[in-house]
This record gives sequence, C-alpha cells and structure tokens, in this order.
Amino acid sequence: MLHNIALLSTVTVLAVLEQAYFAVQVITFRRKFKISPPITSGPPEFERIFRAQANCSEYFPIFLSLLWVAGVFSHQVLAAFCGVIYLYARYQYFRGYMHSAERRLGPMYFSTGVLCILIGLSMVGLLVHFVRNF
Amino acid sequence: MLHNIALLSTVTVLAVLEQAYFAVQVITFRRKFKISPPITSGPPEFERIFRAQANCSEYFPIFLSLLWVAGVFSHQVLAAFCGVIYLYARYQYFRGYMHSAERRLGPMYFSTGVLCILIGLSMVGLLVHFVRNF
Amino acid sequence: MLHNIALLSTVTVLAVLEQAYFAVQVITFRRKFKISPPITSGPPEFERIFRAQANCSEYFPIFLSLLWVAGVFSHQVLAAFCGVIYLYARYQYFRGYMHSAERRLGPMYFSTGVLCILIGLSMVGLLVHFVRNF
Repeated sequence: MLHNIALLSTVTVLAVLEQAYFAVQVITFRRKFKISPPITSGPPEFERIFRAQANCSEYFPIFLSLLWVAGVFSHQVLAAFCGVIYLYARYQYFRGYMHSAERRLGPMYFSTGVLCILIGLSMVGLLVHFVRNF
Repeated sequence: MLHNIALLSTVTVLAVLEQAYFAVQVITFRRKFKISPPITSGPPEFERIFRAQANCSEYFPIFLSLLWVAGVFSHQVLAAFCGVIYLYARYQYFRGYMHSAERRLGPMYFSTGVLCILIGLSMVGLLVHFVRNF
Repeated sequence: MLHNIALLSTVTVLAVLEQAYFAVQVITFRRKFKISPPITSGPPEFERIFRAQANCSEYFPIFLSLLWVAGVFSHQVLAAFCGVIYLYARYQYFRGYMHSAERRLGPMYFSTGVLCILIGLSMVGLLVHFVRNF
C-alpha cells in the first residue's frame, strides 16, 4: 500500500524543506535589518518577505490537503507532478515578492492555477469513486 | 479501503473551497479599500475581514486533523457530518466578523463546540482501539 | 492497519490539545490587557504571547506532515516519541516566550532539532522504500 503514497510523501517532505528555506530567509532579513521578534513590521523589504512567508505558510496545509486527496483518489504521479510544479511556483513567488510586490503576481496566479488543477483532480477522483460504489 | 475515507476527503475539498472563498473576500476588500500587500492594516472593516480569514486559516489544519482522526478511528459518517456543520459555522463566523467583532462570537463558540465533539470522537475511537488491541 | 497509525493519531490529538491551550492563553491575555480582536498589537507581553501562538500555529501542519511521513515510512514508535518531545519543546517555547523573547530561543532550537530528526527519519524511510521497490 505504501507505494500508493510514496510520491505524495516525498513531495510533502519537499514542501516542508521549502518552508524551512523560507523561514531561514526571514531570519536572515530579521538579522540584516535588526528586527527582533515579536516585532513584525519594518522597512518595506522586510514586510514583503515577512508576508511572502506568511502567505506560503497559510497555503501549505491547503496545498497538502489537495495533493493527497488528488493523489489518492485520482492519480498519484499526476498529483505529485502538480505538487512539484506548485512548489517551484511558490519559490518564484517568494523570490519575486522579495524584489517587489508586483513580481509576486505572476507566480501567484500560476500557483493558484496549479491548485485549481489539484481541486479538479480531487473532485473527478471522488466523483468516479462515488459513482462506482453507489 | 478508499470508501473508509471518501467522505472525509470530500469534506476536506469542501474546506479548501471555503478557504478559497475567504481568500477571495479579502482580495475584494483589499481592492475596495485600495490596500495593497504587504500592508495588512487599514480601516476596521478591512482589519476585521483580514483577521477573520487569518483565524480560519489557523484553524484549518487543526480542524482537518480532528476530522480525519475522528473519522478513521471512530465513525466516518458522523465525523464528516460534524465537518460540514463546522464549515457552516465557520462561514457564519466569517460573515458575522465582516459585520462586527461581536457577531463573530456566536458562530465562534459554536464551531469550538463542534471541534470539541470531534476531539471526543477521536479520543473515544483511539481508546477503544488501544483497549481492544492490548 | 489502524495499529500502524494509532500512535501517530494519538500524538496528533495531543498536538491539537496543545494548540487549544495556547489559544486559551492568548484569549486570557486579551482579556487581561483589554485588547479585543481584530487588534493584534499591544504591550510587549501581549505581542510576545501573540507571536508565540502564531509561530506554533505556523509550525503545526509542518510538524504533523513530518510526524506522519516519518511514522508511516520509517518507524511509528520512534516518530511518535519524537512527536511528544517536540510538543514538550513547544510548550517550553511558549512559556519561555511569555517571559521574554530571549527565553524562547533554547526551546526553539531544540524543537527545530527534533523536526530535523523527523526529516531525517522521513528521508531514510522513503529512500529505503524506493530502493526496495525499484
């Protein structure tokens, strides 16, 4: 049974490593601008990177939920592939947001598109399951 | 085995769609009040809706954890039913918070009650499992 | 099959109960300092406890992801043990942060170390799985 979730688990670990990378970037900027916790405001560069990380953290459980439902009920390899693309888009989002608020928009729309594909895969997979069983 | 988690997966996708609805509301209010990211402060109406969404995001993984443990170890249909009620309470919470901070309280207490039921179902399910197996 | 995930589910419920404890602490401090939502700023004591809870919430889904991948692909008892240690470190982090920003550091580094062990367990487990199957 584990082979049905091994790729999903691998993408999950990759997603955690990406969140760790984002967290390290925030810590680096905190030190650079001397902004110690619990303070979360500062120069625009810091506020952008702080929001970038907060946004990625907020979407982390949403992404994993869809990755797993899509992977289990629809197609593991396809879901895991979408997962890797999503993580790449999130990396571009973070790097873009570091530069300017405008540069986050392209990767943001793209990552939302990947989530929509995962929602579609999940819904189709669940629908097929219910139709077959009832 | 998939039939043991199909309803839980369905509620999970519904929860994601609700989070998407909340996110779209925040974007709508950002445009209405011309508050571009990374700014998160503004008029009370905006700050309320921003906090409403942040609170729902914070409880999203907590809710899913309980939904799944309760559904797998106790009773899938009961857990999924509680899940749908919780999502409805969260919708009322969000709409109430948009109107005033006071109006969030009723649905907030109600949604906390539903989470307590899911905690109870999880604990009873796990206890029965451990008693049976040891 | 449930016995392979019963301990992971138990630690998951414990993690939820810990988050509930943190949330109650924030509510208590909100009442003490008369800081009603949606306001999130106030005296340093309140801002520290608010950030402590926000940080624990942010790491909650990351921790659960690693707990489950490590527990399923590597060793359930070992992963669950790490999970309990992590929850204890998070409790110390929260209590330390309540006192001063400096006192959060020790438990923060320790909890990060536990997450690194869970990442290691996950990676080794997945690697062994892929080597065995291909």
